[in-house]
Amino acid sequence: MTKYGFLGIGIMGKAMATNLLNAGLDVTVWNRTAAACTPLIDLGAKQGKTAADVVAHCDITFAMVSDPEAANALCFGKDGVLEGICEGKSYIDISTVDADTSNAICHAIKEKGGRFLEAPVSGSKKPAEDGSLVFLCAGDQSLYEDAVDALDVMGKKSFYFPRMGQGAQMKLVINMIMGTMMTAFAEGLNLGDKIGLEKTDILDVIAQGAITSPMFQLKGPLMVKENFSTAFPLKHMQKDMRLALLLGDAHGQPLYTSAAANNAYIKARQDNCGDEDFSAVIKNV
Amino acid sequence: MTKYGFLGIGIMGKAMATNLLNAGLDVTVWNRTAAACTPLIDLGAKQGKTAADVVAHCDITFAMVSDPEAANALCFGKDGVLEGICEGKSYIDISTVDADTSNAICHAIKEKGGRFLEAPVSGSKKPAEDGSLVFLCAGDQSLYEDAVDALDVMGKKSFYFPRMGQGAQMKLVINMIMGTMMTAFAEGLNLGDKIGLEKTDILDVIAQGAITSPMFQLKGPLMVKENFSTAFPLKHMQKDMRLALLLGDAHGQPLYTSAAANNAYIKARQDNCGDEDFSAVIKNV
Amino acid sequence: MTKYGFLGIGIMGKAMATNLLNAGLDVTVWNRTAAACTPLIDLGAKQGKTAADVVAHCDITFAMVSDPEAANALCFGKDGVLEGICEGKSYIDISTVDADTSNAICHAIKEKGGRFLEAPVSGSKKPAEDGSLVFLCAGDQSLYEDAVDALDVMGKKSFYFPRMGQGAQMKLVINMIMGTMMTAFAEGLNLGDKIGLEKTDILDVIAQGAITSPMFQLKGPLMVKENFSTAFPLKHMQKDMRLALLLGDAHGQPLYTSAAANNAYIKARQDNCGDEDFSAVIKNV
Amino acid sequence: MTKYGFLGIGIMGKAMATNLLNAGLDVTVWNRTAAACTPLIDLGAKQGKTAADVVAHCDITFAMVSDPEAANALCFGKDGVLEGICEGKSYIDISTVDADTSNAICHAIKEKGGRFLEAPVSGSKKPAEDGSLVFLCAGDQSLYEDAVDALDVMGKKSFYFPRMGQGAQMKLVINMIMGTMMTAFAEGLNLGDKIGLEKTDILDVIAQGAITSPMFQLKGPLMVKENFSTAFPLKHMQKDMRLALLLGDAHGQPLYTSAAANNAYIKARQDNCGDEDFSAVIKNV
Repeated sequence: MTKYGFLGIGIMGKAMATNLLNAGLDVTVWNRTAAACTPLIDLGAKQGKTAADVVAHCDITFAMVSDPEAANALCFGKDGVLEGICEGKSYIDISTVDADTSNAICHAIKEKGGRFLEAPVSGSKKPAEDGSLVFLCAGDQSLYEDAVDALDVMGKKSFYFPRMGQGAQMKLVINMIMGTMMTAFAEGLNLGDKIGLEKTDILDVIAQGAITSPMFQLKGPLMVKENFSTAFPLKHMQKDMRLALLLGDAHGQPLYTSAAANNAYIKARQDNCGDEDFSAVIKNV
Repeated sequence: MTKYGFLGIGIMGKAMATNLLNAGLDVTVWNRTAAACTPLIDLGAKQGKTAADVVAHCDITFAMVSDPEAANALCFGKDGVLEGICEGKSYIDISTVDADTSNAICHAIKEKGGRFLEAPVSGSKKPAEDGSLVFLCAGDQSLYEDAVDALDVMGKKSFYFPRMGQGAQMKLVINMIMGTMMTAFAEGLNLGDKIGLEKTDILDVIAQGAITSPMFQLKGPLMVKENFSTAFPLKHMQKDMRLALLLGDAHGQPLYTSAAANNAYIKARQDNCGDEDFSAVIKNV
Repeated sequence: MTKYGFLGIGIMGKAMATNLLNAGLDVTVWNRTAAACTPLIDLGAKQGKTAADVVAHCDITFAMVSDPEAANALCFGKDGVLEGICEGKSYIDISTVDADTSNAICHAIKEKGGRFLEAPVSGSKKPAEDGSLVFLCAGDQSLYEDAVDALDVMGKKSFYFPRMGQGAQMKLVINMIMGTMMTAFAEGLNLGDKIGLEKTDILDVIAQGAITSPMFQLKGPLMVKENFSTAFPLKHMQKDMRLALLLGDAHGQPLYTSAAANNAYIKARQDNCGDEDFSAVIKNV
Repeated sequence: MTKYGFLGIGIMGKAMATNLLNAGLDVTVWNRTAAACTPLIDLGAKQGKTAADVVAHCDITFAMVSDPEAANALCFGKDGVLEGICEGKSYIDISTVDADTSNAICHAIKEKGGRFLEAPVSGSKKPAEDGSLVFLCAGDQSLYEDAVDALDVMGKKSFYFPRMGQGAQMKLVINMIMGTMMTAFAEGLNLGDKIGLEKTDILDVIAQGAITSPMFQLKGPLMVKENFSTAFPLKHMQKDMRLALLLGDAHGQPLYTSAAANNAYIKARQDNCGDEDFSAVIKNV
């Protein structure tokens, strides 16, 4: 039976590891502060001593940490992933990191004989709990094939792209469309409001037609109530749009409409909405 | 039993009148070229001699013609609606016309004692056939209430707004969001293509996430195949965006993102894509 | 000796007629409220009884009124220009009006055998006083040639375009460039300010280089002092940009950058800066 | 008498060193390929053996190389600036480099006891020959004061900013305004062309008014003739606009209009105009 490791038991990691355990899989967990592991131990998880220890004793180890700095520390730091990896061991980083970080980790893992997959996810807390995440994987194809059953436990769908970095780039493309759609939606709601239409009527009409989407269904009523409690922080959306626009710049793709939307998020950040939900952009269009 | 009239038996009108007949309603039809009425006569419709004749003999008469000029000719022309209207008779114009046209028709009908409702639809040929149109009504509320059963036969949902013109304005707001969403989608697909992602993969990832929409599901695969056969002509989308932007201008609502998208449609018109489907904007972003 | 008429003695008209008189020309003046003519009578002008009277007694009559409504009233109203015009008489409208107004006046004048020239000006109060206006003329070329000496008294330069309406359109093109340049300038000043550069230093560097312009030289120091006293009202600039963008729309010319700038002016109008100088756009970029 | 060094005898460096010599100053020159120094030797310059040698024997050494890589090699390479610098010696880098490069060089120079000034210039070949460059200096103020006489020989004006990096940032702000102005100008010319105005007429009208600038005067006639021979490469303008937009992003300054202009340059690069003059953007607006 495949032994799975899971490093990083935050909101997302806890939900994902819980789903692995509920599926009856063998899971060893580790977190920088060990207390976070307790609920998983209660569900049958084993406690790893260090990240290196988990990687050395498991076949496939997942990691889910908050940012590139944390991902680097986890891999290259004392008692980190690199100290445990060797031929026959595999590492899958689910964290969202930039291409340079991802490539550096990949390179180091492969030098030690291990296999590596980047697997950033689309979806936040609720999809993680429901097992309905979407995984955007790139890197070692044989590892993807070995891991796909576990990914299917944690998500509803996974994609494999052949070139390292493509998982992260796909996520940027999707988020750029999402951010521009949200700005279009916000402009429409504000225009309707100015000309005397009820925002709730606009939502009702949208819900009946070709442009309805889960995002509009979920965020629309909250936006009307000016409830911007954070699911995806505006400053992160703006960062993703900046990175997507720079990809366009580097590859000669003009992005007039997305660039206009990006400026709306910059304006919103300037007005101290960076930590609110990205739908708060409606206050600045 | 209420007697319904239907003026204008084109692609949309034929589908709508067919649904009224299939529901067992009493329908008298008229078209500028009478031959278009034959299939409906076969389904049990009565043939009206003139538009005026239909209006005079029916309780509620619907009209569905192609543009403001046709709507004006139908109302004010020889043997037109105005010659048949009087107290106790009602007229519902489903055509998409500008506010000035709508108001002029409304005024003339009311002067003769009749009731008027503007009722532009969201949805094209297929929803008309399926009875899944959405009606955006404004004008006489008592007429809306008397007509709602027939509207429910032809559509899945109808909305009533109290002020004349609001039906048409709601449609502009929705179409502005739609046009900008399409441009965002097109920019994302083209960016993905430039950086080496497959467009079909991008569609698959979108289909799994929060931004999926019937429009992306329907248009996406056609856009990948560069099939731009016309459902909604690009030049009409651009016209609606222009009108929506002018509403924003008149009411002091900046619309940076939608204005950028509008320019993409203008560029596409310049490149002779005006008669293609509006999704052809992808060739110009 | 050519007899000149001048209708409309406002700020601009007074300055222009004064220059004609100072050049020793024969000038008959008329204004809706006669008192405005007094200073010109003191300089040697004759007082006309009505607009029709001035046109009938002079060879070439200039008019300078505030908007299309006033221009129409002056031409078509009681005791108006049309009542005095006939073969051998000429009328030059310096007012800034739309193409439809200009064409209607032109048509009526020609029907009566008169000659017509539209001649909107570039420049405001100070250039009018200094005789440094720029005239953008279109219409009857023989009249332009007969009038050019008088135009040269009031301005430093005049242009003749063959097609009616081109004078007004040239003005829109120039003002669109001006409005977008101002927005670019404002964005640069605000960006500099955010990153710790002194706005006055930026002005000094600009003044030394290839992008210096009379507009930056004049407006820059006022903008730094947040002095937005009105030379050209922001709402008029926004109107001109809207009209220029609609020309682009009608002729298939995308105008992404100017459309973005237009939105900055719309935003400024929304923030109640419409009556300030157009340089107040800096508060909204 | 102050001894000056000059490293990097390209098009710009040759013109600047020539002006120093013509002013009767003591100048020692060095270039990677020594032959480039010959015309200056003929004018009375001394030939330095290495960059280190020049720095060690002169009081103030200027450097003008093409990019950050060359600037780094010149400073940190074998026989480079660092090997000659010591207390009492000064180094002024006129090359346009990024803030990181500038800071690294500054740090290394100061560690050895030398003084450092960054001094990027505004102006290209002709202003260099005419001695009408503008220097944007930042770094050691006492060095600025010691060097200002020599700077005044090579330029018409120099500015001193207290914080390292501000010289380069000022240049980005100016170039962003310049790039957006050019796009506005191009949109206006193309719009005029579409509606039947002669581009040369538009240039004439602009030349008479408030928005005239040396850039429009110089580039306008060339653009009308579609002569885009390179003075400032389009790809460099686009790079500067990207960097300026990233400054705005980092400091919370939305830049809607400049972002739209930036996309026009990206589009132009995509159409293989990157090596043409930046005025070639007119082909893509």
